[in-house]
This record gives sequence, structure tokens and C-alpha cells, in this order.
Amino acid sequence: MDLTRITQQIRFIIEADKLKEIFRQTICTQSRRAENDAEHSWHLALLVVILAEHSNTPDIDLLRVLKMVTIHDLVEIDAGDTFAYDTAGMADQHEREAVAADRIFGMLPAPQNAEYRALWDEFEARETPEAKFAAAVDRFQPMLLNCLTEGAAWKKHGITSDRVIARNKHIAEGSATLWAYAEKMLADAIAAGHLK
Amino acid sequence: MDLTRITQQIRFIIEADKLKEIFRQTICTQSRRAENDAEHSWHLALLVVILAEHSNTPDIDLLRVLKMVTIHDLVEIDAGDTFAYDTAGMADQHEREAVAADRIFGMLPAPQNAEYRALWDEFEARETPEAKFAAAVDRFQPMLLNCLTEGAAWKKHGITSDRVIARNKHIAEGSATLWAYAEKMLADAIAAGHLK
Repeated sequence: MDLTRITQQIRFIIEADKLKEIFRQTICTQSRRAENDAEHSWHLALLVVILAEHSNTPDIDLLRVLKMVTIHDLVEIDAGDTFAYDTAGMADQHEREAVAADRIFGMLPAPQNAEYRALWDEFEARETPEAKFAAAVDRFQPMLLNCLTEGAAWKKHGITSDRVIARNKHIAEGSATLWAYAEKMLADAIAAGHLK
Repeated sequence: MDLTRITQQIRFIIEADKLKEIFRQTICTQSRRAENDAEHSWHLALLVVILAEHSNTPDIDLLRVLKMVTIHDLVEIDAGDTFAYDTAGMADQHEREAVAADRIFGMLPAPQNAEYRALWDEFEARETPEAKFAAAVDRFQPMLLNCLTEGAAWKKHGITSDRVIARNKHIAEGSATLWAYAEKMLADAIAAGHLK
């Protein structure tokens, strides 16, 4: 049996193990340690399947959304995590991540290399219904964890509610219901003093 | 807007955050710390989408497989992780996990509660092509990490190659190619002295 192709694919899967060491600003609800990108990506997959019915587009391609959330942060193996409110870091974020995407998805055999490179571009562009829904859960999940940990990451970086709303309101493009829930959740966080 | 249903779903998603604290015997390739169930579940999702072409069943329902690997370990929030070679722990493992499945998937609104409870049963029964492929990646991934960490978990627990093969050979039911790769990988681990 020729194992050349699967060997190349497994090399990519081994490289991806590094995602477990890329830590984010958000903390986990139980141990209160920083969440890593692998855990975050898994949590997004769960959000996608459980909340799919709330997508603005009813006939959304869920398999495509799941592929997106599974691979969307792999670029951070090279580019590192950029905090959602780090204006300086965000200036060249896309450029740094696009170089990483070339290298990392380039490890896959054809046509998967082109397919996943394009899927990452689709996620970043946030134009298709699938990318809008993937982006919605990607923005909602850290807000949820922040609300459950007394606004830990917001307080640490002095983030105010106007910035949280400006940064995350595009959730409504993927799911109006999820954004309605988020607005209520943020109002509760403000009332509790977890967000200024 | 009525947020009752999404509120119940998000309660389930919050409960699931506990999966990030359930640690396994397998260690990560970079930091060499124990891997947790959330990271493991994410890595399985990546294996599923990248290796789908090697499934014995060509027209496999990938969305179903991805749902399975995303939720398959949630029962360990209550039942804890049972090491694949812990014969005593495995004796009542399914019973303990089934009770956990009732509670955890029972948190979801209908009909999702029944749908995900049944999906977990399908994964456990390993009879459908989807469950066979999900089980194949679930057994392959820890073997891969073990081989990449000089057999750390095998050495720690004195696990020999005959037990590794007996426990994992059902990978071939999901993917003959993946099992062929695994056999070669295990032979290399034995030759390198990482597995007795």
C-alpha cells in the first residue's frame, strides 16, 4: 500500500499539535487559566452544531462551517494570538497570518493545500453565510467566557463596553438571535460591574 | 425576541467548558504536559476532515462524524477519563458514561437532547460507517502522540505492543489505510525502543 499521501497529511496533523500551546487572553471558567487555541477551536465546533438553527441563513453548509472553525486559528502557530483589542497588533495581523497560512496549509498535498488555504481566506473575508456564522461564534465564545469569569480579560486590558460592542456587533450578520443574547449578556455584565 | 431556547443551549455550552479540565494519559508533543479532552476532540476533528478520503466507506457523512468527535468525550465531565489500558476502569466504563450522557445531553432542549444522546450511543456502538471512522481517529490520535513522545504513556503504564495492537486494530474497520500507516508507525516505535 502506498502511504506517501497519508504520510504527508499526518505531517500536517503533527504540526497542528502546536496549536495546543498558543494561549489566548480569555480564561477558562473552571481552572481560570488561559485558554489555548485548540480548546477554543473545539468549543467553537460545539457552538456551531448546537446553535446552527439560529443562523440567519437557514440552509447553511454546516460541514463547511465546521471545517472553518477547526482550521481558522492554525495560522497562529506562526503568527501568535492577537488580542481582539490590540490595535497595534491588528494593524499587520492579516499580513502576518496570510504568510503563516501559505506555509501551514502548503504542507498538505494537492488539492487539499489550495482547498484549506481558500477556506481560511473565506473565513477571513466574512462574506459568505458560512463565514459569517463561523465569525459570529468566534466572537461570541470569548465574550461568553469573559462574562463567566467576572470580565477577567476586559479588566486586565481596560476594555470598555463601547469597544466590546463595536468589535462584536457583526455577530448579528451571522445570527440575529445570538447577538440578541449577547446584548442581554453584556447588559448583565455591565450591571454586575464586570464591564465598564 | 424569545431567548428561552438559546439560553438553555448556552447553559449546555457553558457546562461543556469543563471538558478543558479533564486530563488524559497522552502528552502533547511540544510542552510534554498531559493533553485534555477538549484539545483531543479538536485534534480528532482535524484528523476527520484531512483524512476523510481514507475512510473505507467513500460516501461517509462527514458532518455526522464531526458531530460525534466533538461530543464523544463530554461524558467524561462526570465519568472522568478512563485510560485505554485500564482493565479495571473499563469494566464499568460504559455504565458510568451512559449515566453521564443522560445528564449532560439531557441539558439540551428537545429534540437536540435525544439527537445527541443517540449520537453518543451510535459512536459507542461502532456499527455505522460514521462511528467506525470516528472510532478509528479516536484510537489513532493517542497512538500518534505516544509515538512522537518516545512512548511516554506506554512506558509509564508498562503497556506492550501486543496490547496496543489488540486494542487498536479495529482502526482497520474505519480505514484500512490509516491502520496500515499505524502498523508501520508502531513497528518504528518498537525498533526505536519506545514500545516493548
